[in-house]
Amino acid sequence: MTFDFAALATLYKTTLLENVIPFWEKHSIDTHYGGYFTSLSREGQVYDTDKFIWLQSRQVWTFSMLCNQLQGHEGRSHWLAVAKGGADFLAQHGRDVEGNWYFSLNRAGQPLVQPYSIFSDCFAAMAFSQYALAMDEGKEQDQAKEIALQAYHNVLRRQENPKGKYSKAYPGTRPLKSLAVPMILANLSLEMDWLLAGDQLEAVLEKTQHEVMGDFLDGSRTLMLEQVSPSGQQVNSYEGRSINPGHGIEAMWFMMAIAERQQNTALSNQATDVVLSILNFAWDTEYGGLYYFIDSKGHPPQQLEWDQKLWWVHLETLVALAMAYRLTGREDCWIWYQRVHTYTWEHFSDAEYGEWYGYLNRRGEVLLPLKGGKWKGCFHVPRALYLCWQQFEKMQASC
Amino acid sequence: MTFDFAALATLYKTTLLENVIPFWEKHSIDTHYGGYFTSLSREGQVYDTDKFIWLQSRQVWTFSMLCNQLQGHEGRSHWLAVAKGGADFLAQHGRDVEGNWYFSLNRAGQPLVQPYSIFSDCFAAMAFSQYALAMDEGKEQDQAKEIALQAYHNVLRRQENPKGKYSKAYPGTRPLKSLAVPMILANLSLEMDWLLAGDQLEAVLEKTQHEVMGDFLDGSRTLMLEQVSPSGQQVNSYEGRSINPGHGIEAMWFMMAIAERQQNTALSNQATDVVLSILNFAWDTEYGGLYYFIDSKGHPPQQLEWDQKLWWVHLETLVALAMAYRLTGREDCWIWYQRVHTYTWEHFSDAEYGEWYGYLNRRGEVLLPLKGGKWKGCFHVPRALYLCWQQFEKMQASC
Repeated sequence: MTFDFAALATLYKTTLLENVIPFWEKHSIDTHYGGYFTSLSREGQVYDTDKFIWLQSRQVWTFSMLCNQLQGHEGRSHWLAVAKGGADFLAQHGRDVEGNWYFSLNRAGQPLVQPYSIFSDCFAAMAFSQYALAMDEGKEQDQAKEIALQAYHNVLRRQENPKGKYSKAYPGTRPLKSLAVPMILANLSLEMDWLLAGDQLEAVLEKTQHEVMGDFLDGSRTLMLEQVSPSGQQVNSYEGRSINPGHGIEAMWFMMAIAERQQNTALSNQATDVVLSILNFAWDTEYGGLYYFIDSKGHPPQQLEWDQKLWWVHLETLVALAMAYRLTGREDCWIWYQRVHTYTWEHFSDAEYGEWYGYLNRRGEVLLPLKGGKWKGCFHVPRALYLCWQQFEKMQASC
Repeated sequence: MTFDFAALATLYKTTLLENVIPFWEKHSIDTHYGGYFTSLSREGQVYDTDKFIWLQSRQVWTFSMLCNQLQGHEGRSHWLAVAKGGADFLAQHGRDVEGNWYFSLNRAGQPLVQPYSIFSDCFAAMAFSQYALAMDEGKEQDQAKEIALQAYHNVLRRQENPKGKYSKAYPGTRPLKSLAVPMILANLSLEMDWLLAGDQLEAVLEKTQHEVMGDFLDGSRTLMLEQVSPSGQQVNSYEGRSINPGHGIEAMWFMMAIAERQQNTALSNQATDVVLSILNFAWDTEYGGLYYFIDSKGHPPQQLEWDQKLWWVHLETLVALAMAYRLTGREDCWIWYQRVHTYTWEHFSDAEYGEWYGYLNRRGEVLLPLKGGKWKGCFHVPRALYLCWQQFEKMQASC
């Protein structure tokens, strides 16, 4: 592998368009009920037909995003049809009578799991916003916009109490808030830019950026914490000590996207510091790759899967490093990019059947041979491939 | 290792009384607030102070059980004091105003996690029943009996809807029931024998035995399923395909205990068939040990920790095999016993610091060096050591 920008841009582009997207086009479409199969074996065989709202929405988002970003591509009309197949299914079956998004449905669209997750609403909002943007103006587009905004307002309404009545925490003893909420709200709001009033967007970005970089950043160690007290204090408990390196790194490229929009060099530099610091903390020096969970004080984490190597962790890290290098030019980013690139492409990609493996053990051996499941769908791989392609294309252009 | 009954009885007895119980006596007692620390490092250092009702109750049970079973032991008065330290803490802090048992408390006893788990009530009932049995007659014993019976009635009341308002399942689409409920009710009811009216006990045993061996047993493959439809049909979903080998094997020695009580040879033989069949299905022929989760149709299980080797899985298997061999005399049980014994003692025990490791990776290497945590306390190791000791002592006596 030669690490030149043009070659990298080509690698990401061709893998996205010739290896990954075709896998989902070929294997995931439920032509009978609409929506997508996401539980797919290495070869693409469907091994379970349940439909998870996160993954249904994310696939609508991915195909709509391709339509929006690659307007002239010959596949566009098919991509739009794929997005429509999921969006229609979601619009018809995805919500309860109060407009909250279920967690999962059976193949035919009947609800299986209640709307306990704010992230179901979040990914639905992302999906319908991208989908609406890909559509022609008219009544159908208006409906998609309306669904996107309604889901967005669910997220805003639920953000202080994300699990609502499904929360098992006893009120008051040890209140905690999660990094996931402001981080995803930042990304979602950037996504919905075109549907939000300018001042509303800036207000949300300001608040989420402040919360992520203020409350969740352990400034003394330059690490992102997953849960802190409502006022941003560290809490010495299993949850309070939990570090999810991939999640923290993903949050940092969301911050870099805000920084770029605001031309805020200090913010991109700070986010880059955090990425590098997490990498130094969480890189497995024996077998390579990033751990899934680490206890910030070095105690045993409660997650038994802590030492596994997950696809999305590594892909989000490649996005963050490519973006950080483009924005800051710092040499450390480039050294780390090459290291993570080599590990990720060697261990996760699958030239033979398309799409990438999701779950490796600590040694980097395939732990589950699936290409999709309950949590892995058509999202992190194509999004990261697209974003890395764009980073290298821009770096190539400015050489 | 020579596998003679007398040597095995001695090994289990000395490990229980000289290696395992001293570890908990030395490291787990919270002399300030009462109750127990269960998050303990390999060496016994406390790394977290939260108190989980399952584990608090189980330690009360263990120390009370030792008092009841080893009446003449010199440690008895100390064991009773240890049990009292946990029981008093639980009686004071463990329940909400309606008498439901919380899931966890902070060190001082303030509630952290709501009473969402029927098993909190179950283990509280077991704890206070054994504790009452260990006490002298009088007002304090009456109070302990009352707590035990109230918790037992919670379990009976909640058994059809174990998670109550915390359930995330949408009603009606795909109703499922869990093996855990009848299996634990069988064990609990046997435990509470002395507090229950004879006909009530026999009715519960009849019902749970029928449910476990009828609804949850996949008769065609002789495997225990974790979840089935309310009428005992197999369900083709992630949950419906899930097999938890250690859980199924543990359920089988609960059935053998009923069989022995009822002098039901057919039942002990059937339970033995299931144990042997699960072992053939779930033994890792490459690295040894039993997998934690397997999909019954060979698809990827949803649990990322599926290939890990857990202490309780192996200890419950030793109990089941020793009991099966004593009750049936079948040679297969003895061959399997020796194989599982060798793996388990080589990989989990820790002669240096006491107690056993809990979590190994597939290769049998220590994954988390803890001796106790959020789910591992003073229970499976001492209970299994005590029960194996008893099996071999009885076999030795009847030689």
